[in-house]
Amino acid sequence: MEHEHPENDEHFHTLQVNEGTSDKPTVNPYLKDFSRFKKKTYSVDEYVDGILEGNISILSQAVTLVESSKLEHQIIAQEIIEKCLPHSGNSVRIGLTGVPGAGKSTSIDAFGMHLLKDTDVKLAVLAIDPSSELSKGSILGDKTRMERLSVANNAFIRPSPSAGSLGGVARKTREIIILCEAAGFNRIIIETVGVGQSETAVHSMVDFFLLIQLAGTGDELQGIKRGIMEMADGIIINKADGDNIDKAKLAQAHFKNALHLFPMPESGWEPKVLLYSGYYEYGIKEIWDMIADYMTFTTQNGYFAHRRNEQSKFWMYETINEQLKSRFYNNSKVQSELKVYEQQVLSSQISSFAAAKKVLSLYFNE
Amino acid sequence: MEHEHPENDEHFHTLQVNEGTSDKPTVNPYLKDFSRFKKKTYSVDEYVDGILEGNISILSQAVTLVESSKLEHQIIAQEIIEKCLPHSGNSVRIGLTGVPGAGKSTSIDAFGMHLLKDTDVKLAVLAIDPSSELSKGSILGDKTRMERLSVANNAFIRPSPSAGSLGGVARKTREIIILCEAAGFNRIIIETVGVGQSETAVHSMVDFFLLIQLAGTGDELQGIKRGIMEMADGIIINKADGDNIDKAKLAQAHFKNALHLFPMPESGWEPKVLLYSGYYEYGIKEIWDMIADYMTFTTQNGYFAHRRNEQSKFWMYETINEQLKSRFYNNSKVQSELKVYEQQVLSSQISSFAAAKKVLSLYFNE
Repeated sequence: MEHEHPENDEHFHTLQVNEGTSDKPTVNPYLKDFSRFKKKTYSVDEYVDGILEGNISILSQAVTLVESSKLEHQIIAQEIIEKCLPHSGNSVRIGLTGVPGAGKSTSIDAFGMHLLKDTDVKLAVLAIDPSSELSKGSILGDKTRMERLSVANNAFIRPSPSAGSLGGVARKTREIIILCEAAGFNRIIIETVGVGQSETAVHSMVDFFLLIQLAGTGDELQGIKRGIMEMADGIIINKADGDNIDKAKLAQAHFKNALHLFPMPESGWEPKVLLYSGYYEYGIKEIWDMIADYMTFTTQNGYFAHRRNEQSKFWMYETINEQLKSRFYNNSKVQSELKVYEQQVLSSQISSFAAAKKVLSLYFNE
Repeated sequence: MEHEHPENDEHFHTLQVNEGTSDKPTVNPYLKDFSRFKKKTYSVDEYVDGILEGNISILSQAVTLVESSKLEHQIIAQEIIEKCLPHSGNSVRIGLTGVPGAGKSTSIDAFGMHLLKDTDVKLAVLAIDPSSELSKGSILGDKTRMERLSVANNAFIRPSPSAGSLGGVARKTREIIILCEAAGFNRIIIETVGVGQSETAVHSMVDFFLLIQLAGTGDELQGIKRGIMEMADGIIINKADGDNIDKAKLAQAHFKNALHLFPMPESGWEPKVLLYSGYYEYGIKEIWDMIADYMTFTTQNGYFAHRRNEQSKFWMYETINEQLKSRFYNNSKVQSELKVYEQQVLSSQISSFAAAKKVLSLYFNE
């Protein structure tokens, strides 16, 4: 009794705390055992069959398993993915980036509705946003920004998995692509905000990388990370409407000049710069025509298959390298000594290489 | 006898090969023990004292130890480096890149001779060229291209270490920088050809990154790797002389526009685009003035010290990460299975992540 209520100690002799009674349960505690109230769970084969039939509800639940951090969910998820793998690959994967305010959501809504006029098209919209752990669902979370697409029949919109690291989020997104493709989605848009490392990850899982820019004096570019422009297969300048059209045309000329100074990408495809208006839906067809041209071009010159293969290998080796690092830096001996050696390096007591060697000896017990 | 000369087997009965006699030695075999013919070797402290006195001959021999792949040399080299470390750091480290034909050697000769007018300046010219294993000494090997600098008093020119991997060459170059600085060299130029990954390595060990370009229609840029332009703190356009001057000015305008489209670098320094002629030695002073401006600017805003610290940490972590990978990929179990799993990934039998997991389990014996 004293242990549970330390206030009853003699030091606090004016206090007297009585033992309370527990509240009555507000829900019948036996109800949870009633199996008819349990959410339906499927076997791996039921999941796979459902996905292959294009059942959106089952696809969603499988995606939830992929995103789950519970081991038992991961085991099922991996089995589903392996079985869906032979049915994946038949889509055009498009990476889309742009700073906040560039109008990404409005644009995706317009792009998507244009695409879905073709009834053979099924569009999945995913996102990579490793920072979303903090701002949970800031990206794409607000489905209402894609008013029409979010209620369209052949569209599947899924916000970024909120699991911490970029590596984890990227892996999950790549796995979700496999599931979506197995479910018959033949256009995949992967959205990201152009401010972090996530663009490199997205670039390594898509066929075409699209950068949304705004017309202006260049100040708007401050938010775009260095190196992103060079990854773009197409730059599209939004809000090329009304009074803004001259400024947009000038920006187009500037970007064309700048791209001209870059060396030709490995694909042999010369990146295009197009104008459009997401809000007024001008120039949307031309963007999809560009992507179709790119697909024809890279399929014919063999780059498409080459890049897909390189990406598969990339993710295998990337996963290995990430794991090697993760095990090292989470090792308790390493963790306790690493900062000590780092300080010695910063104060020129030891060279960077000698410090590295010492920490490595600790890890490998040499 | 039969074993040594298989031709004497009865299947080759028309052949008869006789045992030969060994050649007499052409050199007295006892001569190698005569110590007076041995090259003078120094103790670690003699090396360090010599370097700190600015003895070029001893510096050269220490650099040779750093470049050596023999374990006994490496042990001495590391001791020398650790003792020189507190005396290092007092230099401006400049990375210089440009495609073959941009006139790098002529330019360095002109830059160097301009610098050495100031008798307080000591200039070391190093190079990173991991491919030099094949084309041994293609870069800087031809010292005759730096006619005046190669015989100048306060200059030290050293070609790229020819040891295989980029990681190895980069490490050695960074160690050689330490030795040169301890020997009083206060300007270090590190040259590289702008076609490989070596620029990123060089960028991570210098204070100022200089890109040499040529005027032209943009075709000349095909050789420059994507991403290099964004690393440049200054772009200098060579051969801005005679009939070429208008073309050079046009190129300058184009590069200025292009740089304007990039976001501001972390240093806060806006990269400059200058014209010069390495051959006629126009515009050389302006290039050094730019570098001096940069030094003042980044010293005042604290970026200089910040970047040096970040670089020291970078090389510590880079060395660790390289070693983790090197041990993994040289593991015999990993080597025998890796390609098998890679093939399964390429034929969609297994996902990239599942394959990675399997090879990792092999390595960690799980």
